[in-house]
Amino acid sequence: MNDQAPKDPDFEARVRASFASQGLMVTLGATLVRVFPGLVEILLPASRAVSQQHGFVHAGALASIADSAAGYAALSLMPPGAGVLTAEFKINLMAPGIGELMMARGRVIKAGRTLTLAQTDVFAVHEGREKQIALLTATLMAVEGRDGVSD
Amino acid sequence: MNDQAPKDPDFEARVRASFASQGLMVTLGATLVRVFPGLVEILLPASRAVSQQHGFVHAGALASIADSAAGYAALSLMPPGAGVLTAEFKINLMAPGIGELMMARGRVIKAGRTLTLAQTDVFAVHEGREKQIALLTATLMAVEGRDGVSD
Amino acid sequence: MNDQAPKDPDFEARVRASFASQGLMVTLGATLVRVFPGLVEILLPASRAVSQQHGFVHAGALASIADSAAGYAALSLMPPGAGVLTAEFKINLMAPGIGELMMARGRVIKAGRTLTLAQTDVFAVHEGREKQIALLTATLMAVEGRDGVSD
Amino acid sequence: MNDQAPKDPDFEARVRASFASQGLMVTLGATLVRVFPGLVEILLPASRAVSQQHGFVHAGALASIADSAAGYAALSLMPPGAGVLTAEFKINLMAPGIGELMMARGRVIKAGRTLTLAQTDVFAVHEGREKQIALLTATLMAVEGRDGVSD
Repeated sequence: MNDQAPKDPDFEARVRASFASQGLMVTLGATLVRVFPGLVEILLPASRAVSQQHGFVHAGALASIADSAAGYAALSLMPPGAGVLTAEFKINLMAPGIGELMMARGRVIKAGRTLTLAQTDVFAVHEGREKQIALLTATLMAVEGRDGVSD
Repeated sequence: MNDQAPKDPDFEARVRASFASQGLMVTLGATLVRVFPGLVEILLPASRAVSQQHGFVHAGALASIADSAAGYAALSLMPPGAGVLTAEFKINLMAPGIGELMMARGRVIKAGRTLTLAQTDVFAVHEGREKQIALLTATLMAVEGRDGVSD
Repeated sequence: MNDQAPKDPDFEARVRASFASQGLMVTLGATLVRVFPGLVEILLPASRAVSQQHGFVHAGALASIADSAAGYAALSLMPPGAGVLTAEFKINLMAPGIGELMMARGRVIKAGRTLTLAQTDVFAVHEGREKQIALLTATLMAVEGRDGVSD
Repeated sequence: MNDQAPKDPDFEARVRASFASQGLMVTLGATLVRVFPGLVEILLPASRAVSQQHGFVHAGALASIADSAAGYAALSLMPPGAGVLTAEFKINLMAPGIGELMMARGRVIKAGRTLTLAQTDVFAVHEGREKQIALLTATLMAVEGRDGVSD
């Protein structure tokens, strides 16, 4: 849809360093897997620690990794120095978060100068079978020249 | 907008017990404060453990408490035996999550037989001042007679 | 929530002139009623011309007046010369659009330099009774210095 | 993602008859093009009659055809007798609606018993080039046994 050439040759290192500084991802036990221009994958092992009341993975935990995947897919295409903030996202939960592992794959749909639209598909891996359980669409905002906001 | 008489006289105990079983809320350090018919408040102390890369509270952490607040506002009006699942939510982030404490206040806009619409306002308390930083709208689904899904 | 002082003393005339140039509003038969700083109301008479297949007012027609109401609420607070574009909106339909008249009341939740968050409540008036039937939240973007985009 | 076998062999005739009874589509000048199981396309010629204030196609008009495309993609997979209602949708506008023709392609992501998730891509055709300008995700509800609600 758009040419997804990274404006920053060091995009992968930059995304990985920024992800490592997200305290929430550490707290949830999420890990960053693949980082391509405009596409980022995050894994979350299912456990009691990220559950809702029925033992499924909490919609908030799914939204957290899906939002980070969308945000880093967007950041991977931004010029050096820009920071990324989420303006909004919507998540549809298609099936309960049941399985051993949750996987969020975020990709850029449209990278604009100020706003980027990204979409994340969330999958549950249960007994070796992968099933899509959620779909997130997000508007990410590039922020430049603001104290404390880079990457 | 709608008469918000609880169909379950024990709604508060039921909401509190269900919240206590949400592993994610424990992991994040969130606590349930007020539980009224159709209105629920959840607090989240800000810390490195729930941060994104700039040190603000992560949008996913805000979404997590906002989703739980919306879900429990919905559950507080459901008949005994019904369970609540989130079908979808959207969150708009109006300002960065900066402050000592985040507070999510969820309330039911329309309670239907199958679907409930709820809205959560999220506030940051910073140096004694409260500021709205996010707005979530959610569709909650009442589930009855499904194994493992109650409250 | 925010001080909603208009930056343009002529905000009402500007909103009314812009509304009059929205061909879609003419086609639907919608009219602009009240224009206050940060709050705008639009009316739509129900008819076969704006219906869906069951005879209710089409979600798209409700979304159209709700989006315009949100957009003009946002524009009413923007400085002279700025144009407004919708970046995204979500609408929850709470009840079918049944009645003689639909009314959309849009108001600004947070006016930012680039992005404004607005919310529109949509009501159906049926046999003299008003009932909320939809809720829209929208992100509006202020555009300056772009050819053909003002007001 | 899901097996999209139609439960109603007459799905196409049913979708076409229902579309023909949507007064709004007639008013806007929209036409139904392709109807496949789980996939529906709607065309809208751009004109002053569906414009916003800058002369672009109004976000509400884009949302109207995108919502109908999502709804009919959902209906195409529903059993005979069921009616479809939109519970909610979100639309992200990626670029202004500039061009001769707008095209909405709706497809089912997950068909459930009660709720169906569908997504619509909206394209503008301008001087022979097709460009995606909007992305809608919708929750559709199957309604059975309710007076006046079928198809």
